[in-house]
Amino acid sequence: MTREDCIALDARDPLASHCDKFALPADLIYLDGNSLGALPRATRERIDEVIGFEWGEGLIRSWNAARWIDLPRRVGAKIAHLIGAQPHEVICADSTSINLFKVLTTALRLQASRPHALPRERNVILSERANFPTDLYVAQGVIDLLGQGHELKLVDFDEVTAAIDDRTALVMLTHVNYKTGAMHDMPALTSRAHGAGALTVWDLSHSAGAVPVALNAAAADFAVGCGYKYLNGGPGAPAFVFVAGRHLAAIADDRYAQPLAGWLGHRAPFEFATDYEPAASIDRYAVGTPSIIALSALEAGVDTVLAAGIDALRAKSIALTQLFIELVELQCAGLGLALASPRHADRRGSQVCFSHPRAYAVMQALIKRGVIGDFREPDIVRFGFAPLYVSYANAWDAVQALHQVLADREWQRAEFQTRELVT
Amino acid sequence: MTREDCIALDARDPLASHCDKFALPADLIYLDGNSLGALPRATRERIDEVIGFEWGEGLIRSWNAARWIDLPRRVGAKIAHLIGAQPHEVICADSTSINLFKVLTTALRLQASRPHALPRERNVILSERANFPTDLYVAQGVIDLLGQGHELKLVDFDEVTAAIDDRTALVMLTHVNYKTGAMHDMPALTSRAHGAGALTVWDLSHSAGAVPVALNAAAADFAVGCGYKYLNGGPGAPAFVFVAGRHLAAIADDRYAQPLAGWLGHRAPFEFATDYEPAASIDRYAVGTPSIIALSALEAGVDTVLAAGIDALRAKSIALTQLFIELVELQCAGLGLALASPRHADRRGSQVCFSHPRAYAVMQALIKRGVIGDFREPDIVRFGFAPLYVSYANAWDAVQALHQVLADREWQRAEFQTRELVT
Repeated sequence: MTREDCIALDARDPLASHCDKFALPADLIYLDGNSLGALPRATRERIDEVIGFEWGEGLIRSWNAARWIDLPRRVGAKIAHLIGAQPHEVICADSTSINLFKVLTTALRLQASRPHALPRERNVILSERANFPTDLYVAQGVIDLLGQGHELKLVDFDEVTAAIDDRTALVMLTHVNYKTGAMHDMPALTSRAHGAGALTVWDLSHSAGAVPVALNAAAADFAVGCGYKYLNGGPGAPAFVFVAGRHLAAIADDRYAQPLAGWLGHRAPFEFATDYEPAASIDRYAVGTPSIIALSALEAGVDTVLAAGIDALRAKSIALTQLFIELVELQCAGLGLALASPRHADRRGSQVCFSHPRAYAVMQALIKRGVIGDFREPDIVRFGFAPLYVSYANAWDAVQALHQVLADREWQRAEFQTRELVT
Repeated sequence: MTREDCIALDARDPLASHCDKFALPADLIYLDGNSLGALPRATRERIDEVIGFEWGEGLIRSWNAARWIDLPRRVGAKIAHLIGAQPHEVICADSTSINLFKVLTTALRLQASRPHALPRERNVILSERANFPTDLYVAQGVIDLLGQGHELKLVDFDEVTAAIDDRTALVMLTHVNYKTGAMHDMPALTSRAHGAGALTVWDLSHSAGAVPVALNAAAADFAVGCGYKYLNGGPGAPAFVFVAGRHLAAIADDRYAQPLAGWLGHRAPFEFATDYEPAASIDRYAVGTPSIIALSALEAGVDTVLAAGIDALRAKSIALTQLFIELVELQCAGLGLALASPRHADRRGSQVCFSHPRAYAVMQALIKRGVIGDFREPDIVRFGFAPLYVSYANAWDAVQALHQVLADREWQRAEFQTRELVT
């Protein structure tokens, strides 16, 4: 394998033309699209239009004239297409954390109302110890707020299946782990959870836009996810929330099944009624007025993913990550790296992690060389491969940079620098 | 009074130069800035910079390099200046509805923990029947979620003071009513509430940026407010939340005093710890990752208010609204309008409402004439006077249009049209 081979792969790549749709600096190899997706060129123009014309000239009239009011559902329907859901099951709103709060409270309430439930004993929210912390924090906050004796039980990645039992109320998992990229078997775990009488809540933050997700095929119950990673929605983009249609029907008569009762979740917000009556649809997962600018940027980002097609993206993602693992293990052998992601592509999302005893300084030195990835505690260097805009040549060049950082011990020079990143 | 007199007033207006900072269509008289503030010219350029450079070129590095991570506190501190708060007491986050959920739960928890509280009996959240509905919905959702027997008691505007008693846990009021513009006496009501052992939660959505608010001078406890009205932050801009410094100190050891426990409210988000430990500051009212684009637009909007100065804005607002009332009552006498806002400026925010039996069609006809205000159920036409960009000549011209609509019965032609607006 040579750099020329990688360039040849790029020349044959059916997604190659999509790279040009992103405004990436020419001197950068960006392997952090799993933390913040790159800027689609179309977004800049679209937002200027939203601000200059829809807001500036249309003003308040744009809620109807520019269909701002439909935006949360419209973008939700586009995301639904990427995650195996029906358009009416997904809405964009708020942040991943807040959407998780909504679905955890809904799911516990639904669970408590089921005839086969044993409320006194079925009180465990089961999750993964290495889940992204905000998911654990939100669950801890919900448990304390409800005060009904629920317990957050945390186990390791491989122990989840065995830990599901008749005390499990909910299984709350992030589909693809933020650190290692390890991917849970959604159909198997959902089936196991349902068999034990539990409901499932999936966080798709590191899946949506990178991995085909089939929520309804897996009979998943609830899901949330992030707009600013592989969906390219921009820093802090609005999040999305999925509720399976059968649950929307089941909770239609439960007024506070979603307890963040805001006016945009009302059956008829513009009647300005005194009492909350929820919409009998996914709209009840809306709360306050959403940022139209942020939602418009998210839509432009999601459109880049839809234009490429999720299956083509997954195929390239697998090829890129396999190539990267092979090249690193070949060219950086003996330099202290150990693969920390699953070796098999079907157990992995679109990122690759290696451990290294000086991981922090290694990543600092790589960034100096124009290769942007992430450090994650305690000893992980993380490389995200957003297949929309990462090329095979990028993968090759990143490995050469990594080799130089390690072989020349460039990380020693970086040791005294500090840097913090946001996932 | 003639149109020339109004033009002379504009010529002497110390804020006249600020009008040019907004990109309003030339043929429009925009009296709906209390619903959606106009576009500051600086915003369009600023957002293009945030998108093109900070996101597009800086990418993930901008969380530190462009100080994205500081934005919620930085914009919060600017808003603090407008509402009589300390910089460390205000943060921008989420929506008004969600911020209200946070402070209602905090306030009830704080109330329940106070030595003088009688938890069994002090269970009333007192509010105004004509409060903006989302505030009532959020309170209803909180009450149901807590399941502790709290009650939402709704009274009329003038009955609030008398209704505060030793059963009152919280007084939750919108400072300036969204429909009538009637303004509560914050110092007097807060003092009365405290005297009875109650805490106060103020919604400043129709105050911030239009009326000087003195939260700390009034010893207010909690407040929330909207970024997209007089703060000109753009459609669905992020909201803000205020917690009095003394309460931040009092709840520092209460882990879930703010139950939406997200990672950005953690003491050290980037340690990725498994257990939630809240920041000992207003930061705990942050939850998930905020939209940087939306927050940057809000900052540009708040800057327009700061540049003018809130006292100068209030002085012009009073002059504009007094003029409008006088002109309407003079020139539209006998045409079916009745003032529905307080007549005295010190009891009114920056908007003026009239009732009319055909209010909906009247507003439709006015919009056809290029005067944009709002209809509100059942019979209200509402005119917002954002003093940053509304001129005295605008007020004059709006009255002439209103006179024509009524005198020529233009509203009859508009009767069959439909239109919905968002506050």
